Amino acid sequence: MGGQEIEQLIRLLGRLPGFGPRSARRVALYLLRDPQGRLLPLARALERTGAAVRTCSTCGTLDTVDPCHICADPLRDHGLVCVVETVGDLWALERAGVHWGVYQVLGGTLSPLAGMGPEDLNVDSLLRRVESGEVREVILALGATVEGAATMHWLMDALGQHAGVVVSRVAQGVPMGGALDVLDDGTLAAALGARRPA
Amino acid sequence: MGGQEIEQLIRLLGRLPGFGPRSARRVALYLLRDPQGRLLPLARALERTGAAVRTCSTCGTLDTVDPCHICADPLRDHGLVCVVETVGDLWALERAGVHWGVYQVLGGTLSPLAGMGPEDLNVDSLLRRVESGEVREVILALGATVEGAATMHWLMDALGQHAGVVVSRVAQGVPMGGALDVLDDGTLAAALGARRPA
Repeated sequence: MGGQEIEQLIRLLGRLPGFGPRSARRVALYLLRDPQGRLLPLARALERTGAAVRTCSTCGTLDTVDPCHICADPLRDHGLVCVVETVGDLWALERAGVHWGVYQVLGGTLSPLAGMGPEDLNVDSLLRRVESGEVREVILALGATVEGAATMHWLMDALGQHAGVVVSRVAQGVPMGGALDVLDDGTLAAALGARRPA
Repeated sequence: MGGQEIEQLIRLLGRLPGFGPRSARRVALYLLRDPQGRLLPLARALERTGAAVRTCSTCGTLDTVDPCHICADPLRDHGLVCVVETVGDLWALERAGVHWGVYQVLGGTLSPLAGMGPEDLNVDSLLRRVESGEVREVILALGATVEGAATMHWLMDALGQHAGVVVSRVAQGVPMGGALDVLDDGTLAAALGARRPA
């Protein structure tokens, strides 16, 4: 259909997350209908980003500079480190604009079944920062999953050896706008257990 | 978030059909996690396709050669032309492998509200092919919409001036695997009206 370049493009698009053959064809057609206005700008943006992207050697996020924009920002609180699993989690917190400190991106969670051990997590640079004495508080913002909890406990052990560093974790409870009757039992139990005076 | 190249990439991805900001970020992260293996191959495929894509001057489909693979194929029946609205429709028929003739891609339908008149449809090359005497039958495979029906009637008029050319249209009815109780009234009426001896 339309030559092997077009077929190859549809194959590559079909491998993207959330894509199937149908959406791959739809996006390919959308791009092919306007090569100058749609397809080539996207090709150039990918090319430029691919050449520029690097991993921040301090926190592990993806950026086009190293150290990243956040780690290099003197206005951010470098004594307050928020630990997240993925770059996507960091982006979510940045979009919300709720964290004025810096980050540590683990790149995953402990998961014996998936073969992820402590040596596979990006924690060395966090421990180095803590050892250097510049870190006042570490906020663990990991997912409320079995793997997230295991990682949290392992991190609390590793960080607990450093006196003078407060380790905290994000609260669990009813999400904003959430109705109670659609929440799972675990969330309800956590929300009740962590109740506060009204 | 992650430098302006990454933000620009997310913006461009967010404009693709079926994309929102969330899926754009998801796809960007997926690509950025493996620039060599995922991002740059896609960039190169887009670049190559953008440079190679052209519109077939005979039938109007998108291909990397002109005339397209289908129009250039001596094994296809050039006396049997199937008229479709879009390149996506042509791809669907080719995937099904149910048409051994050639095509004419109109590039849309008549639609006074959208400002689409006969002059905006890619029909000249169809009429030329019919005039040259090489066409035996024209199959109208247009959508079962108001615009599709209007376009079909206009085409039947235009083609009706050429004696010796059979003009047919695809059948309407119950789709394969379709239950009757979920079909709309129009489809049920068409299926009953076009009933055949069992």
